[in-house]
Amino acid sequence: MRKTIVIALGGNAIKQADEKGTAEEQFKNVQTTCAQLVSMLKFGHRLVITHGNGPQAGNLLIQQEAAVGEIPPQPLDICGAMTQGQIGYMFQQTMQNMLWKEKLPLPVVSIVNQVLVSEDDPDYQDPTKPVGPFYAEAEAAKIKKERPDYVIKEVKPKSVEKRFRRVVPSPDPIRNIEYIAIRRMVDAGIVVIASGGGGVPVVYDKNENLRGTAAVIDKDKAGARLAEVVGADMFLVLTDVDAAKINYGTPQEKAVRTVTLSEMKKLHKEGHFKAGSMGPKVLACMRFIEWGGECAIITSLDKAVDALVGKAGTRVVPDPVKE
Amino acid sequence: MRKTIVIALGGNAIKQADEKGTAEEQFKNVQTTCAQLVSMLKFGHRLVITHGNGPQAGNLLIQQEAAVGEIPPQPLDICGAMTQGQIGYMFQQTMQNMLWKEKLPLPVVSIVNQVLVSEDDPDYQDPTKPVGPFYAEAEAAKIKKERPDYVIKEVKPKSVEKRFRRVVPSPDPIRNIEYIAIRRMVDAGIVVIASGGGGVPVVYDKNENLRGTAAVIDKDKAGARLAEVVGADMFLVLTDVDAAKINYGTPQEKAVRTVTLSEMKKLHKEGHFKAGSMGPKVLACMRFIEWGGECAIITSLDKAVDALVGKAGTRVVPDPVKE
Repeated sequence: MRKTIVIALGGNAIKQADEKGTAEEQFKNVQTTCAQLVSMLKFGHRLVITHGNGPQAGNLLIQQEAAVGEIPPQPLDICGAMTQGQIGYMFQQTMQNMLWKEKLPLPVVSIVNQVLVSEDDPDYQDPTKPVGPFYAEAEAAKIKKERPDYVIKEVKPKSVEKRFRRVVPSPDPIRNIEYIAIRRMVDAGIVVIASGGGGVPVVYDKNENLRGTAAVIDKDKAGARLAEVVGADMFLVLTDVDAAKINYGTPQEKAVRTVTLSEMKKLHKEGHFKAGSMGPKVLACMRFIEWGGECAIITSLDKAVDALVGKAGTRVVPDPVKE
Repeated sequence: MRKTIVIALGGNAIKQADEKGTAEEQFKNVQTTCAQLVSMLKFGHRLVITHGNGPQAGNLLIQQEAAVGEIPPQPLDICGAMTQGQIGYMFQQTMQNMLWKEKLPLPVVSIVNQVLVSEDDPDYQDPTKPVGPFYAEAEAAKIKKERPDYVIKEVKPKSVEKRFRRVVPSPDPIRNIEYIAIRRMVDAGIVVIASGGGGVPVVYDKNENLRGTAAVIDKDKAGARLAEVVGADMFLVLTDVDAAKINYGTPQEKAVRTVTLSEMKKLHKEGHFKAGSMGPKVLACMRFIEWGGECAIITSLDKAVDALVGKAGTRVVPDPVKE
């Protein structure tokens, strides 16, 4: 049966942790990823793909800062849109090449995509998401003076000296802005790459105009919002492990297989999933099922096709309908 | 009557020559531009918008080079896709804001868009399009050694010392790669921003895979290709003058108003239009009419709405159909 599936790709789909991020490296990873995506397209599924942008945005921010005397750096929202172009291009071209080889020339398009957040989000009170270069103490003090809008904090250091970084909030995504266009594109049979890097975060200003905000949205949470607005059947979160685990790192560690929303809520409440990693993925899956999705899956890239038919991964399904 | 119009925006639609290119400056110019575009949308026309990316790509290349020791620079095709994201975002957000104020919430979306060229294009033999930073002689020699794939030439200098720059070919666009997706999007009532910066130039490699090529495509010529594939009625080239001129810069200077394709061909042959500026615009207009377009217009941003109804600009129309 033909399904509409939103797939949130993990960082390893584009760049491995030990790589510098050359175009060659990234294209190679993207190829491995696209081979899996093309398998799903061959089953007749409609795909909407989203991805992170952490390493790419990080590199771009360092490049912008390196030329700061000569070229005005662009704000974080524009940098986000730039990485949507960058990563979208690599996926789009690679997937097109593979689809043409399969004689299945589905149109594939990446879009610039904004996601609404609110500056009333509690994360704006105490931002913790580090972005851009590491600074030594003196540099950090200088940047603080030059950019009063920046919040600089001491973070997990890169080296003994370089312990400071700019931090921004990671607000909860409220709504995908281009939802009508994306829905129409999916209906028209287009494979859409959207909400890259969690989407370009935007807020309404006092004149009710959208404008960018210096923030980073969790790509899995934004992916769940995307899945809602396209009316997806399934939401697939791909990461570097094949399932969510309970009692992680203990002798009682056990993979979660197929669970109902209520069962997953219980596990989530019991604190089995770490805030920085599996937590938001589980939350995103629960939200998608709460909205009305049929199945949300967490698994690894190589298990994705098996997971779709119930043979792998952590799968969250709805509770029975009761009065 | 409702028409499908492809609009190629000049560089001044985004950045004025005397500006540094801050986000604030660019958003301000984009607002002026979008006010005109929204007027056309209010008439019920369907718009597909394309734009240049020269200053933005130039800035990005300088930023990439400034951090070259730390961060691997991305190749020119990826930089092009990044500027499609950057510029597309500014237009998309600004147009959406204006349309919502008009209670005309048409979906607006920018896409990553590739354009096919050929490495057999004669321009690959002697590339002349300068990109990226200016170099002093010693720097140029060093870069030549490090990057054997670069062609470095002496160009119109920025300063007495800095006389060298990388040059790339500007091949003729053969075909817009995402033509099916764009056509479906236009049919679905989406305002599409496409082929930014002339499109990301791609060629087929020996395995019949698309891959990026280090080149820059003229955005007006690529705009004509875009107009063909979406089956546009009109092609509108907006620039900083209100019409193409014959005998430019002489006492006999005269604006070209409405001319047939044959008449325009004659003027073009007589050498009235400069290769670096008005020439490609005239050529793009002629190609669009040759393909089967109804009307191609060259005018300034502020005359665009008048030009659509024949009250301004240079207009190229087809010759009478003969046996």
